[in-house]
Amino acid sequence: MRKMLFSWIVALSLVLFGGVSAFAGDVVKTLPGDITLAQAQKIVAAALKKAEEIKVPMNIAVVDAGGNLKAFVRQEDAFIGSIDISIKKAVTARYFNMTTRALGAVSQVGQPLYGIEASNNGLILFAGGVLLVDANNVIVGAIGVSGGSVDEDESVAKAGAAVIK
Amino acid sequence: MRKMLFSWIVALSLVLFGGVSAFAGDVVKTLPGDITLAQAQKIVAAALKKAEEIKVPMNIAVVDAGGNLKAFVRQEDAFIGSIDISIKKAVTARYFNMTTRALGAVSQVGQPLYGIEASNNGLILFAGGVLLVDANNVIVGAIGVSGGSVDEDESVAKAGAAVIK
Amino acid sequence: MRKMLFSWIVALSLVLFGGVSAFAGDVVKTLPGDITLAQAQKIVAAALKKAEEIKVPMNIAVVDAGGNLKAFVRQEDAFIGSIDISIKKAVTARYFNMTTRALGAVSQVGQPLYGIEASNNGLILFAGGVLLVDANNVIVGAIGVSGGSVDEDESVAKAGAAVIK
Amino acid sequence: MRKMLFSWIVALSLVLFGGVSAFAGDVVKTLPGDITLAQAQKIVAAALKKAEEIKVPMNIAVVDAGGNLKAFVRQEDAFIGSIDISIKKAVTARYFNMTTRALGAVSQVGQPLYGIEASNNGLILFAGGVLLVDANNVIVGAIGVSGGSVDEDESVAKAGAAVIK
Repeated sequence: MRKMLFSWIVALSLVLFGGVSAFAGDVVKTLPGDITLAQAQKIVAAALKKAEEIKVPMNIAVVDAGGNLKAFVRQEDAFIGSIDISIKKAVTARYFNMTTRALGAVSQVGQPLYGIEASNNGLILFAGGVLLVDANNVIVGAIGVSGGSVDEDESVAKAGAAVIK
Repeated sequence: MRKMLFSWIVALSLVLFGGVSAFAGDVVKTLPGDITLAQAQKIVAAALKKAEEIKVPMNIAVVDAGGNLKAFVRQEDAFIGSIDISIKKAVTARYFNMTTRALGAVSQVGQPLYGIEASNNGLILFAGGVLLVDANNVIVGAIGVSGGSVDEDESVAKAGAAVIK
Repeated sequence: MRKMLFSWIVALSLVLFGGVSAFAGDVVKTLPGDITLAQAQKIVAAALKKAEEIKVPMNIAVVDAGGNLKAFVRQEDAFIGSIDISIKKAVTARYFNMTTRALGAVSQVGQPLYGIEASNNGLILFAGGVLLVDANNVIVGAIGVSGGSVDEDESVAKAGAAVIK
Repeated sequence: MRKMLFSWIVALSLVLFGGVSAFAGDVVKTLPGDITLAQAQKIVAAALKKAEEIKVPMNIAVVDAGGNLKAFVRQEDAFIGSIDISIKKAVTARYFNMTTRALGAVSQVGQPLYGIEASNNGLILFAGGVLLVDANNVIVGAIGVSGGSVDEDESVAKAGAAVIK
């Protein structure tokens, strides 16, 4: 029979912390101000709306301030290969706090950051990754879009990013 | 200056095919019957509803019939480490056409498939991955949930899977 | 002693579902219309015939609509290093619904998708990966060939792809 | 314009070897006696015949004496996750010159080789990988089968291996 992991941990916590469980909600687990799922869903919805307007099926990924995946959708007929690209675009934008277009510009052959894509388990160096900056001017994550031309991808990413500005 | 990929290819196609674009929608890019984004979003919504009911923050991933990611959400305070686990649970379920609970049962120490998790770039062997079977009795993908106890995870996955049955 | 996995699961199913096995074939496991092994074998045979005609030993890989390997052969004296290349060519073609030649053209130095090969665990950007489009105009997978010049590779891939058109 | 890789290499060879191309067939590229594609195809055909007899859809992989993939097929409805497992079974058998069943027996918890699956980018420790030994008693590769119970897998692998003994 399988034991429940957390029941066990909670029980252990009770022993270790004298009855005050580390899982009782008294610890803040997420940085205040980080992107919420509700925000991410609004961003994804706005990006989907734009993708439908321009009639290009897209992969859309949102990462939080820590660069970790928060939300993702793939439309019908969107490239399978763009699952990874859209996520990497969002990660790349947040990891370097600029658009993937901007990072790409300084990473071309002969440019200062040439070869940077070999780091971080793969970066993407073309447009479609855009920072998510909230109303308080705080970077709360990034959105990455892949499926069309790089300009189309970026227009969809910007449409998503616009809703929390 | 960056060229637009598809404008360029479409233009090339027009030249090559005498005005008949290879991108004019005349090729079916997705196998008929595969999970749609609308279905995936309904599944995710149902799973989120269950997660809120049981008050456990979850990572929820949906893959299509080919095992490729279709939709993903992470709730506030859900484990960052469960992003990968939820996706791998969905992939594992589809890759072996059974729940991760069922695969786990035969992969324990002393069981026939002991060590199977060393394959496929990592499998998950505990509950929370469930097949998505549509109204026509076709496997159209899988859902993977991670964030609580394995029983909680599986209950959320089943709540999601139930909506397309 | 090792137990038989499925006998065990079927037995369990009989207990759980009161005699109605979940493994009784009542669930459709493959999306209707996906490439069959018979088709893949015809494609491989046609590609092998072409490879023999041009006297270049080849690696030939076929993936299905989900981008998962369906069939593979390596001829005598074909490069060992081309096992992975031929498979990645097929995957690349399907992941972006175009030939690897077309994707390569827009991924060169100074082109829009420069650096894309850092995604998806490695893509191949030169000719030899071709889509498999069936008589109903549905993309059912892709073929990747590696072993000769890129033009030779592509001619063999096209010879394979032609048989299911 | 794309240059042909091999034309270039042949030209280079002519310079380097005084007119005698390294590609003129005067170098033996494959160890005499290694498995041929014709043999691999006979082995795969025999394995497929057995799989059809026992009515279990299988993934079947053949590697050569160097442990490199020579042939592969996946039947309709065979597990997607067994692509990797069947190949790893064949590789595991050849890498250690024994069946995966035999390696598995000495790699269980408490056994001498416990944990060995963490090496070689993943090994498989259950039955279904069998050596290919030819009429001269030479190991010329291995066959790996995955899709059913481990006993079913091994019976199909043995049916394949039998044809070149």
